[in-house]
Amino acid sequence: MRRVVIAGTGMTDFGRFQDSSLRALASEAAKTALADADSVTAEVGMVFFGNAAGGLLTGQESVRGQVALRHSGLLGKPIVNIENACASSSSAFHLAWMAVASGQCDVVLAIGAEKMSNEDRAVPMKALEAAADLQELEELKARIAPDGTGTGSVFMDLYADIARAYMDRTGASAEDFASVSVKQRQAGAFNPHAQFRKAVTSEEVLASKMIADPLRLFMCSSIGDGAAALVLMSADHAARKNVTPVDVLASTMCSGQGDAPSRKPVATLAARAAYEAAGLGPDDLDVVEIHDAAAPAEFILSEQLGFCALGEAVPLLRSGRTALGGDMPINPSGGLISKGHPIGATGAAQLVELADQLRGRAGRRQREGARIALAENGGGWIGNDAAVAVVTILGAAAPH
Amino acid sequence: MRRVVIAGTGMTDFGRFQDSSLRALASEAAKTALADADSVTAEVGMVFFGNAAGGLLTGQESVRGQVALRHSGLLGKPIVNIENACASSSSAFHLAWMAVASGQCDVVLAIGAEKMSNEDRAVPMKALEAAADLQELEELKARIAPDGTGTGSVFMDLYADIARAYMDRTGASAEDFASVSVKQRQAGAFNPHAQFRKAVTSEEVLASKMIADPLRLFMCSSIGDGAAALVLMSADHAARKNVTPVDVLASTMCSGQGDAPSRKPVATLAARAAYEAAGLGPDDLDVVEIHDAAAPAEFILSEQLGFCALGEAVPLLRSGRTALGGDMPINPSGGLISKGHPIGATGAAQLVELADQLRGRAGRRQREGARIALAENGGGWIGNDAAVAVVTILGAAAPH
Repeated sequence: MRRVVIAGTGMTDFGRFQDSSLRALASEAAKTALADADSVTAEVGMVFFGNAAGGLLTGQESVRGQVALRHSGLLGKPIVNIENACASSSSAFHLAWMAVASGQCDVVLAIGAEKMSNEDRAVPMKALEAAADLQELEELKARIAPDGTGTGSVFMDLYADIARAYMDRTGASAEDFASVSVKQRQAGAFNPHAQFRKAVTSEEVLASKMIADPLRLFMCSSIGDGAAALVLMSADHAARKNVTPVDVLASTMCSGQGDAPSRKPVATLAARAAYEAAGLGPDDLDVVEIHDAAAPAEFILSEQLGFCALGEAVPLLRSGRTALGGDMPINPSGGLISKGHPIGATGAAQLVELADQLRGRAGRRQREGARIALAENGGGWIGNDAAVAVVTILGAAAPH
Repeated sequence: MRRVVIAGTGMTDFGRFQDSSLRALASEAAKTALADADSVTAEVGMVFFGNAAGGLLTGQESVRGQVALRHSGLLGKPIVNIENACASSSSAFHLAWMAVASGQCDVVLAIGAEKMSNEDRAVPMKALEAAADLQELEELKARIAPDGTGTGSVFMDLYADIARAYMDRTGASAEDFASVSVKQRQAGAFNPHAQFRKAVTSEEVLASKMIADPLRLFMCSSIGDGAAALVLMSADHAARKNVTPVDVLASTMCSGQGDAPSRKPVATLAARAAYEAAGLGPDDLDVVEIHDAAAPAEFILSEQLGFCALGEAVPLLRSGRTALGGDMPINPSGGLISKGHPIGATGAAQLVELADQLRGRAGRRQREGARIALAENGGGWIGNDAAVAVVTILGAAAPH
């Protein structure tokens, strides 16, 4: 296996861009990433195009990447369309890494893109449901919103159910969930690409509209559009470029185990495999991006990924260590709650943020001296867990 | 790069199975392939799930493979959902090959599955259209069926347009296209998995319903359901198994070049790369499966893949060399016309047939002494060419 680096990154702003197409978003991110990697399309050996639900969202299925990159100069390249719910573009990155590590290609482009906003809100709501097993959807809805009070967003109902269980188990409160949102919004205020760039107070979070008890509007990620892209290279190839590379120290993927009785959380399985592959542990991490599609996810994932002991995630947040200025900021990009969550673009955008952190170009979000970073990107729901988790560990290259 | 083999194969019958689910079809194919590979699910390191249009066909998008394999014992494994129109499962195979060749995994499962049949015929028709660039669909329709006589199947209109151009260029006739169907149906009659297992005469083909001049019903592939799976292994791993392995000598993928002025056909590009990788040429092939979604495609692809000179495909067919009993049978499975074309399963099913041929277990379809085989699987349409082509070259392993 060859050493693989991220040589360039690019992303669009995240937000609601009713008049922008998946094609325009993806092309912009790809172009920016290639320029950042001091590279041209002719060098690209393969393209992995991550998109979660374009068939249901836009009607364009089957050849999404080829259509999206129609005028980008990348046609003719092997383009593979990868779908894995909210983990689509980290899955694309995982395969891009494999293509370079294996020696198949020297330069590979991984893109994530999603166009969710629609005049008819029912369209994205319906598309999001397809990330659960549709054969079990009614049963799931009945379980998580038994009194028929569902919000219309099955995943926010699910996060609310998970949040209630977490409160029962740990004593966490709605105020604690609000603290996650305050932290994320504070970071997102410094991110020019973020969908929500306005800091909020705990009072404002707790006064925002109730979505599904205990989750309020500002605790939830939103419908959004956007794209993010990364250029991966063999370390040898990158050495000939005018770039500051970021090492890919580990890339692992697991699918959820459904309701297998002895299962561990899929995020734990993917993280353990990544720590082992990198020869690192949670204590080595300087900066982290995790899948906070709703505020309670930050607590649950902090425990599942080994950042703290079970039940200790609220104290971890309160310690200030995971905020900007702490020794291990979590979601300095603003996370899904603040940066935005155009589902198929999210995993790639997490890695764009971490690459910026490790290259010292994260501006007011910078974790000073960041050397090691981890991203966790989850997707879908099968049985009693996420359907997929991808964990990536990145390292700053030695100074040139 | 490690030597990679196909250690086991499985496929369902192809046909219209209104009451069968994508899950049932995929699970059956996976189970059969694993048993044939003398393997159990615990050995599988990664799963590539190819499906072309399940979002539009079934509503289940985002986590198709995880849902389809829900009860197969494969949850927990990395499952990646691959979409590339009618080349979805050869794309899945290509990535599976890469995962083994790179040393990432010793055992990988590649599956293709599609559930197309629907009480409402408009559903599959609409889904198939998504394999073209929807932004250019009206323009494409106006070009290929200018008098508004479209059949409702944009791809059959397209094949009819291509057929007419081929007739103009080479002097081929409707009778020649009928000869392709007669050959395919003769082979399909011997394939227990084929959707259409009844031989037909040229007169019957030419008397079948006109779909889009010059294409008649029996010259066209049909709506169908089915799944096919292959277990890939490192050659070293397979040597410890009670299996007859098939060598993967080359696997290549290209995306179409749209309307780039200097382009070569995408099938030609993928085939040349495969010939080069395998150190072989068209003269070395003993048996071939190509993407005959409509009869004229066999002629055009025979030329694009180098089986004969430009304009010589009709004489090649007439020579008898490409029929069962010839020295290079094309589509001994019955091809897409006779075996069936559940789009996301087609590429994998081509490889199942070729593995059977190279293992000497193709029954009355057997090419005696087959040592080298090639599959070409195309998908989608962008600009003036298929959006993607995957070419695979397989070799019989030395006798045990």
